[in-house]
Amino acid sequence: MKFSSKIERCQASAMRRFAPAAARAEERGIKVYHLNIGQPDIRTPEAYFEALRGFDEPVLAYAPSGGLNVLVDAVRGYYSRLGVELAREEVLITNGGSEAMQIVASCLLDDGDEILIPEPFYSNYQTVVNLAGGVVKPVPTSPEEGYRFAERERIEPLIGEKTRAIMITNPGNPTGTVLDRGELKMLLELAKEHDLFLICDEVYREFVYGGEELLSVLQFPGYEENVVVIDSCSKRFSACGARVGMLLSRNAALMTQAMKMAQCRLSVATVDQIAAAALYDLDSSYFDATRDEYRRRRDLFVEKLERIPGVVFARPMGAFYVMAALPVDDAAKFQQWLLEDFNDKGETLMFACGEPFYATPGRGRNEVRMAYVLNEADLSRALDILAVAIERYRSGF
Amino acid sequence: MKFSSKIERCQASAMRRFAPAAARAEERGIKVYHLNIGQPDIRTPEAYFEALRGFDEPVLAYAPSGGLNVLVDAVRGYYSRLGVELAREEVLITNGGSEAMQIVASCLLDDGDEILIPEPFYSNYQTVVNLAGGVVKPVPTSPEEGYRFAERERIEPLIGEKTRAIMITNPGNPTGTVLDRGELKMLLELAKEHDLFLICDEVYREFVYGGEELLSVLQFPGYEENVVVIDSCSKRFSACGARVGMLLSRNAALMTQAMKMAQCRLSVATVDQIAAAALYDLDSSYFDATRDEYRRRRDLFVEKLERIPGVVFARPMGAFYVMAALPVDDAAKFQQWLLEDFNDKGETLMFACGEPFYATPGRGRNEVRMAYVLNEADLSRALDILAVAIERYRSGF
Repeated sequence: MKFSSKIERCQASAMRRFAPAAARAEERGIKVYHLNIGQPDIRTPEAYFEALRGFDEPVLAYAPSGGLNVLVDAVRGYYSRLGVELAREEVLITNGGSEAMQIVASCLLDDGDEILIPEPFYSNYQTVVNLAGGVVKPVPTSPEEGYRFAERERIEPLIGEKTRAIMITNPGNPTGTVLDRGELKMLLELAKEHDLFLICDEVYREFVYGGEELLSVLQFPGYEENVVVIDSCSKRFSACGARVGMLLSRNAALMTQAMKMAQCRLSVATVDQIAAAALYDLDSSYFDATRDEYRRRRDLFVEKLERIPGVVFARPMGAFYVMAALPVDDAAKFQQWLLEDFNDKGETLMFACGEPFYATPGRGRNEVRMAYVLNEADLSRALDILAVAIERYRSGF
Repeated sequence: MKFSSKIERCQASAMRRFAPAAARAEERGIKVYHLNIGQPDIRTPEAYFEALRGFDEPVLAYAPSGGLNVLVDAVRGYYSRLGVELAREEVLITNGGSEAMQIVASCLLDDGDEILIPEPFYSNYQTVVNLAGGVVKPVPTSPEEGYRFAERERIEPLIGEKTRAIMITNPGNPTGTVLDRGELKMLLELAKEHDLFLICDEVYREFVYGGEELLSVLQFPGYEENVVVIDSCSKRFSACGARVGMLLSRNAALMTQAMKMAQCRLSVATVDQIAAAALYDLDSSYFDATRDEYRRRRDLFVEKLERIPGVVFARPMGAFYVMAALPVDDAAKFQQWLLEDFNDKGETLMFACGEPFYATPGRGRNEVRMAYVLNEADLSRALDILAVAIERYRSGF
């Protein structure tokens, strides 16, 4: 039987593609260091679980489609502390940031419509855009330039009649790039001049390591009609399993369209919304401690990665990933070899292969994304294994 | 700025459209009986909350995209008791039955592809199909015939080159129709002969009031490639707010495509999956008690509705809705009048207007869907109000 052309165009997840091979390696007794997914090992704040245990309604009822007011107001309070005042109807609670992206894509894209995204990008964007019938038009970058992209000359020539939006992730996944006020202002200006949406995925906002201020495109006045922000509790509070995200925009027409989709899927899980609301009461010391921990991991990771000959990458400024070009022919072949034919004292590692983070065919073949979400001892050992493995792989095993 | 044509085609929810008017009535001190949404008032089993409170992992991590094994196996155990043996990869856990439907629609439908659905149907199907670019082709029924549709002569002539699937809800929402083995067999045969999927939404399976056996299209051997079942914990366990549903199929190619979408949205809420798994340990006495309660409500509702002159409806055999034609010109106008200009001793009522349950323009204008999910005293009072209101409305207020 026939499937839709849009689902046929989609790939299996870049992060989860080698999971079966990893499972087989683990069955053979090999320890696998998982640098492939952004699942933090930081404890979820106790406030979440306390709120969960405190739920005492007799009926676990649907929440309103737009979200429970207790969570909507908690999110508004958080943004208010960033200087951004949002009305309730400017906040839509979603099943993680992923659903927020799905909703925006379906609201904006007809078949063949384009969305400009700097590549490499979070690979699921490609699937989301494909499923909405749209096309990712990549803004090119390179590992040698540290994957920076925010230049008018690079982006403006790509805007055409079918362009509906520019989409960025800031801080960047997979690149760790952090944009400054000037770069954001240029992107906002570009979107406004060309009557486009600027969709900004800001789920890693707190994860900046150079003392940068916490920035949101919502902080810039004058672009209310153009700005859409995707946000989430997953990374900020190490609560990935809550599946609580949000879509934020002052474009009332967009929010009206988005609500149709929200109503169609009824609601987001009720107790998770109540528990997520409690997370927003945490004070800044929580974020400071988490940021310090990730900064140490980033520093260790970068220091050890720099020592591996032939690896090209830029020191990430934010989020918790490093995108790097390895001195191998094909990262997927290398990954398969790592899981099937290699081990160093019974241990090996996994990364996410680079190609699915690109829309341009052939790009990213020798690149990988590694998440520094493990503790320092494990990260250190994983990079020792990587160094040994690259050497052995290049010498023809 | 422009939105996609597919979102423009979608309507705001039939069930939630009059929510603002209802809120205003309530602000004026009017009590509103809500027959508009299928939110049961039955207590959620304590097992759910116990499991929730028992969660003691330090990190609330992503679940696997296909679902936690503890829940997948619980679902498999439930189906095994119905005589249906499913492998783990034949069960995909989703954000409610709603997401299961979204996934199927995206996997099957290209722009302009058709899906046959007897009308009236659960109105969100229309939105889901529209968003996937498809078209609902309605199989006609009438209130006078009790909304029955399962006849080969009625359906087969509608199958064309663009038809990809037949979709049914059994027991029926909004009609309460319950299909027998012969009718299901005919539908399965039709799907197989024409190489179509038969998508069966079975979320109301336990809610049958005439002593019928619990049926699933999965119980029929020989149609493995054609059958897709949508199921959910929401109604079965009065756990609508858990947002735990599932997609079930033995068509391996479909499940592979579906997994791409599941990976793209990462996972379903972790604690809700663990808590939902605990619900499957309940024995049949739970379902017997719930069924008895709804049967009493159905009987009371039907008995009182029959006494209102000019109302045309069929006694529902299952689920917990009555679809009825009222002796009014336009149910939406009547609903607005009920909320804005009418009250009986300070009380009024809400139903879901019929038109959004139809794909054929103009059909269902004088019909309404009412959910008998309130206690008997409230249901009784709501129908007394309806009788008074119809009489007053017809006499020109």
